[in-house]
Amino acid sequence: MLKKLSLISIACLASSSFAVAAAPKNIIYMIGDGMGPTYLAAYRYYMDNPQTKAVERTVFDELWIGNASTYPDDDTVVTDSAAAATALSSTHKTYNGAIAVDHDHKPLTTMLEIAKAKGMQTGVVVTAQINHATPAGFLAHDKSRQNYDQIADDYIDNKVNGQIVADLMLGGGTSYFIRKDRNLVEEFKQAGFHYTDSWAGLKTLNQLPALGLFAPKGFNSALDNPEPLPLKQMTEKALELLSPAEQGFVVMIEGSQIDWCGHANDIACAMAEMHDFAEAVKVAKAYVDAHPDTLLVVTADHETGGLSLGAAGHYSWKRDVIKKVKHTGDYIAGQLLALKDETVMYQAWLGLTGLELSADEQRLLSKARTQGQKALATAVKQRIDHHSTTGWTSGGHTAADVPVLAYGADKQVFAGFQDNTEIAGKLIQFIQQKK
Amino acid sequence: MLKKLSLISIACLASSSFAVAAAPKNIIYMIGDGMGPTYLAAYRYYMDNPQTKAVERTVFDELWIGNASTYPDDDTVVTDSAAAATALSSTHKTYNGAIAVDHDHKPLTTMLEIAKAKGMQTGVVVTAQINHATPAGFLAHDKSRQNYDQIADDYIDNKVNGQIVADLMLGGGTSYFIRKDRNLVEEFKQAGFHYTDSWAGLKTLNQLPALGLFAPKGFNSALDNPEPLPLKQMTEKALELLSPAEQGFVVMIEGSQIDWCGHANDIACAMAEMHDFAEAVKVAKAYVDAHPDTLLVVTADHETGGLSLGAAGHYSWKRDVIKKVKHTGDYIAGQLLALKDETVMYQAWLGLTGLELSADEQRLLSKARTQGQKALATAVKQRIDHHSTTGWTSGGHTAADVPVLAYGADKQVFAGFQDNTEIAGKLIQFIQQKK
Ligand SMILES: [Zn+2]
Ligand SMILES: [Zn+2]
Repeated sequence: MLKKLSLISIACLASSSFAVAAAPKNIIYMIGDGMGPTYLAAYRYYMDNPQTKAVERTVFDELWIGNASTYPDDDTVVTDSAAAATALSSTHKTYNGAIAVDHDHKPLTTMLEIAKAKGMQTGVVVTAQINHATPAGFLAHDKSRQNYDQIADDYIDNKVNGQIVADLMLGGGTSYFIRKDRNLVEEFKQAGFHYTDSWAGLKTLNQLPALGLFAPKGFNSALDNPEPLPLKQMTEKALELLSPAEQGFVVMIEGSQIDWCGHANDIACAMAEMHDFAEAVKVAKAYVDAHPDTLLVVTADHETGGLSLGAAGHYSWKRDVIKKVKHTGDYIAGQLLALKDETVMYQAWLGLTGLELSADEQRLLSKARTQGQKALATAVKQRIDHHSTTGWTSGGHTAADVPVLAYGADKQVFAGFQDNTEIAGKLIQFIQQKK
Repeated sequence: MLKKLSLISIACLASSSFAVAAAPKNIIYMIGDGMGPTYLAAYRYYMDNPQTKAVERTVFDELWIGNASTYPDDDTVVTDSAAAATALSSTHKTYNGAIAVDHDHKPLTTMLEIAKAKGMQTGVVVTAQINHATPAGFLAHDKSRQNYDQIADDYIDNKVNGQIVADLMLGGGTSYFIRKDRNLVEEFKQAGFHYTDSWAGLKTLNQLPALGLFAPKGFNSALDNPEPLPLKQMTEKALELLSPAEQGFVVMIEGSQIDWCGHANDIACAMAEMHDFAEAVKVAKAYVDAHPDTLLVVTADHETGGLSLGAAGHYSWKRDVIKKVKHTGDYIAGQLLALKDETVMYQAWLGLTGLELSADEQRLLSKARTQGQKALATAVKQRIDHHSTTGWTSGGHTAADVPVLAYGADKQVFAGFQDNTEIAGKLIQFIQQKK
């Protein structure tokens, strides 16, 4: 792999032609951030019905037809979410941190921009702030994913034929969209967008364009969130709002926080995010069943955490341990730290995790509690990992290939092994076939 | 998953019918022991040509069309090689350690037995001892994989219609086949088998039935073995010997020691085994190109080691570090221990690994050297892992899904997600279609 040279060869490779039936009218593109292949196996065993002999297939298994490499155009084979989003939106590999720009910081056209130019309706639906790396790679251009304010500005300033790129944006991010220096929510309203910042308001949205911001930044973790299955709820509403689009629609729907649980090495957190994502995929799959002119593609941008089912020589993975855990490690640590009385900590632990510990393990927790939130959260997760024999190698990403899932009439073009840029190339070829 | 009940439901599930063209005349069934999906990604980056921008596809990538679950019928979702071999040979899930027997120790018919009954020719080709778990799961029946002598005995005692099951066996194992209590090599010769125990002898084998045993137990690790690409060599010979079979053939070819490198958490060792396996797959693929009536299926029995490309928060995987390593960690440790003069150790290290170490790291090695072979081998591999940012979570297996690769006219029936028992079911259905 020769670094930082011309991007032409990659782009050509990605857009190489393939035989298709008719191009689909609508495209639902779902990205499980950090969802390496082991997350699919983990979720399958996590969801298994113990009353039957075979392990039941998940909705992911039903749609799983390929695998993809994810390496960026950088001095490493491990991508970040920004470079991966750029590859998955534009067919172009770039450097880690880049939001749909090349090494010279020149904008790379994204599939939502192409769809908009074709008169399609477009949307992004995420559980992170909507100006986070993955959705940003579809709607904005910036030399750095860290420029959150500039990226949010780009969501209204970046125009295609004078139009805002997205007709629908659902996610978090009020702290970036309502700022002292600029109130983007007001600007979107003046541009005709319907706006809500509540789950009740989401239900009453009935027209595009629309903007929904349900948290200051990212949502609460699914495992800690009193609002059930937020991604599923938003996916249902998004498909309802986009469905009437005469020229069809392209929507990118991200299970944003699978990755965040992976960074935290928090398996119970990851399984809850996978469940919300799976329920959203089911909604999309049912939409395709009812609208056979729609193509559903599901993939991931990279793997996070180096997750393994089994660890330290143990031939086991005990999902029953994980199923009893009621909250994320961070949340549990906060609850335990807030107790005034150390002697009730183990009772509180049992209530939060259902996991019995040896006296030595209880002492480990007590010691970590004296060291503060971060040490205690780590100790909490280590106990859960130990008893479930869950393994992690990293708090960052890895270069594992990711699953590629597809459903609908044109699904076969995504079968087999491919590069992430090729997924974008195939989808863009479909979009460009529009009149 | 309900444990240890009737096996009928699994068997039925596995043999559910599917649409096929004509059944293939010949089947080449290749198993990369321990070859989880990350091994395929690792090998791709390991082999990448640095003179080109894109990462080149490997032969594995070209054939990769599905993925498979591997859980056994046991009180865990993590399989061993015996239960996995039974699933892959017979369609039946069983307990870890079982060699083609069920929970009641009743024999489960294997695809090589079915092929033999159909008048096909059959073979196993491995780099472990040929009575190791994976080949044993195709040729023998035993309640325990540990019963090496009994399993070897079964290779001649277990008959189908009065015939020995395998027409060709290539691998290691003289210490099990030539014993004080029984000389199986003599018995095989008396039964008409051509026998060799040398690589020169392999070249001159020109007729079946044949037995080749090239090591007392398993072969030397590919990275330490002066004989180049032993699996590739044996694969070429096996296909040459099996090709004339009038009723066709079924051969199981195993990259046995990918798993052993995984158990040792030795990435340079694993890449060398992957390379020999890849070269053997290329030979098989070329055979299919020349004989379109042949089906090639490649899979793994499970993942070993919890391998990840990237570790400890580092967004990197440096194959250049691994490419310079000339031997396995065990071999390097042996060489360093044999030095009489501690002061030349670092020079010897540099010659063996090409990897420059800090003064602190050199002290780590020196300290480990005082603790003996095992500690030093571990220290050696830890330095290589650290500098290449390779991660491992276990010295055992994990429950990761494994890749499924196929090539030839009927390859499509192996596309998508499936259980390992279904792979066997599809192959056996092909074999049973023979007259
Ligand atoms: Zn991430
Ligand atoms: Zn093993």
